[in-house]
Amino acid sequence: MSHATMTAVQAGVLCEFITRAFVAVDMPAADAASVAALMTEADLQGSDGHGVIRLAPYIRRIKAGGINLRPEIRVIEERAATALIDGDNGMGHLVMARAAQLAATKARTAGIGWVGSRLSNHAGPASLYARMALPQDMIGLYFAVGNANHLPPWGGLDMLLSTNPIAVAVPAGDEPPVVLDMATTVAAYGKVKAKAQRGEMMPEGWMIDRQGQPLLDPKRADEGFLLPIGGYKGYGLSLIVGLLAGTLNGAAMGRAVLDFNHDFETTTNTGQAIAMIDLAAFGDVAAFKQRVDTVVRDLRASERMPHVDRIWLPGEQSHAKRLAYARDGIPVGPALRRALDAVAAEIGIAPLA
Amino acid sequence: MSHATMTAVQAGVLCEFITRAFVAVDMPAADAASVAALMTEADLQGSDGHGVIRLAPYIRRIKAGGINLRPEIRVIEERAATALIDGDNGMGHLVMARAAQLAATKARTAGIGWVGSRLSNHAGPASLYARMALPQDMIGLYFAVGNANHLPPWGGLDMLLSTNPIAVAVPAGDEPPVVLDMATTVAAYGKVKAKAQRGEMMPEGWMIDRQGQPLLDPKRADEGFLLPIGGYKGYGLSLIVGLLAGTLNGAAMGRAVLDFNHDFETTTNTGQAIAMIDLAAFGDVAAFKQRVDTVVRDLRASERMPHVDRIWLPGEQSHAKRLAYARDGIPVGPALRRALDAVAAEIGIAPLA
Repeated sequence: MSHATMTAVQAGVLCEFITRAFVAVDMPAADAASVAALMTEADLQGSDGHGVIRLAPYIRRIKAGGINLRPEIRVIEERAATALIDGDNGMGHLVMARAAQLAATKARTAGIGWVGSRLSNHAGPASLYARMALPQDMIGLYFAVGNANHLPPWGGLDMLLSTNPIAVAVPAGDEPPVVLDMATTVAAYGKVKAKAQRGEMMPEGWMIDRQGQPLLDPKRADEGFLLPIGGYKGYGLSLIVGLLAGTLNGAAMGRAVLDFNHDFETTTNTGQAIAMIDLAAFGDVAAFKQRVDTVVRDLRASERMPHVDRIWLPGEQSHAKRLAYARDGIPVGPALRRALDAVAAEIGIAPLA
Repeated sequence: MSHATMTAVQAGVLCEFITRAFVAVDMPAADAASVAALMTEADLQGSDGHGVIRLAPYIRRIKAGGINLRPEIRVIEERAATALIDGDNGMGHLVMARAAQLAATKARTAGIGWVGSRLSNHAGPASLYARMALPQDMIGLYFAVGNANHLPPWGGLDMLLSTNPIAVAVPAGDEPPVVLDMATTVAAYGKVKAKAQRGEMMPEGWMIDRQGQPLLDPKRADEGFLLPIGGYKGYGLSLIVGLLAGTLNGAAMGRAVLDFNHDFETTTNTGQAIAMIDLAAFGDVAAFKQRVDTVVRDLRASERMPHVDRIWLPGEQSHAKRLAYARDGIPVGPALRRALDAVAAEIGIAPLA
């Protein structure tokens, strides 16, 4: 995409547009504002596959009756350091914002808080919730069951697992926080779709076909499977994340996961889990942050391979994007702009300025 | 190794031998028995790189003064659901057995217990401690900082990270538990050493050289690095595990990690973390186990690739080994036997029967 066709939209403008869109399809105004703020935050941190690009499918699901717009989100199991939240099929952002808040409250006294969800929905990028721990001087961990299965067990052909993501956010001192946000597959499915749109081939290692041979043409993606990271290890990791975020909470996992790209009506019963660890429960907070700074600086300043310009820390690039986009606006390309214009026209609101 | 040169040793016999060995180098008898039981358990579950094979280096470290044989293992930070344990440079098995017990006690009331360690030492296979959650109807999670750095940051040449392992154990009903135990590198360093011993080449993807090219000859291993799973993802995962298990606890991480294969005197300041989640805090335990059984069976019975005989669940093979070795004895090959005989001679005890 050239800069000529790319526009920059200020975060506030984008957030206001998303809010209007949700209100137009009957979401309560306060909820619409909350979801819009989190979707905008996703775009601000550069998670552009999980921000406003999801507005059209969210609206489609809402209009198809697949989302409860008046959910009674409630805690159904609770201990000093744990809780299970029933999302009542509300927007995942509302469920997980509540879960994150509860996890932090519990961590403040118990040292750690772990909150799971059932009957939740897609909630945006995993790191969005793990990052909520940072301003509280806590470490955040987030696990989720993906909303479509693209991964067979190792050696298998039956797609029973999703890319089940993991995010962990660790506060630093003067350095940006260390934030890992990863799918348990080599490539996320969104990257395959992007390659197809650009007419490019995939590198070996992203996907295999049903004979176990490398699949390179992203247009043939539905003839094959995503490869887990580290082979059987990534399969195991995806399974474990699914058990922690889905099965433990009574949420969908394995065969029970529906493909939300093709079914907009059925309740997804999405499961997620967020944990927060209070740094103060392990000693002096400032000393911890200094130790993290040291590790970060040692890694960044260490010797590089030939032709490698810089060693990046996880989360460093999205931290830089966050600063740049908050100042200069969020990039919106022509395809996304057209999609948002179409949504606006369909639901009868003014388009994104 | 042929069966002709492989002997099977009953677990009780092995455990008694290890106990005698530690007592001979002045470890208190009760501690010696505890460590021996855990080392034997490691061999029983097939983690043969982390069981009795470590006796010689442990003894060497003890004789060099690198281990405190009279440690005051104590809790130095505590909340309802968290604790930090100072291992006082005792054997890691003793530190982590204590940590696991404390994590379970906290989980029983708070729903989750997370216990970190500093000034600990190598404690055997990660899954050994995660598995301790299973008989308590809990999920166990274990993270550790490895005791030698073999992994540079992504794009780097400076080995600042270890293979930092993760283990998670999840109870099932009639099925074996799901137990993941993985290094964050494609191959553990022990596998490279085994290839070298057998005179075999490594497959592409295990290691790279300092130019970033595939390194296939395991005899040249010290000219290159282990590759993290999923490239930059595994680098991120190793870093995060190191921050959780090391930095959070004030244990060694990054540049502070010493290579315990070459230094037997300096305190390792090993950091580990164990968490346990009480299933009952998330609803009916029997119903959860049934859901896990369903996922396990769906995966196992799913369609296989051509030439794949069976789909394995993580932990299934070690579960089978556990049953077989408890019945038939633990396999001890000639090289290991010679090493144990040498240890016995050196410390003046009767050899393994």
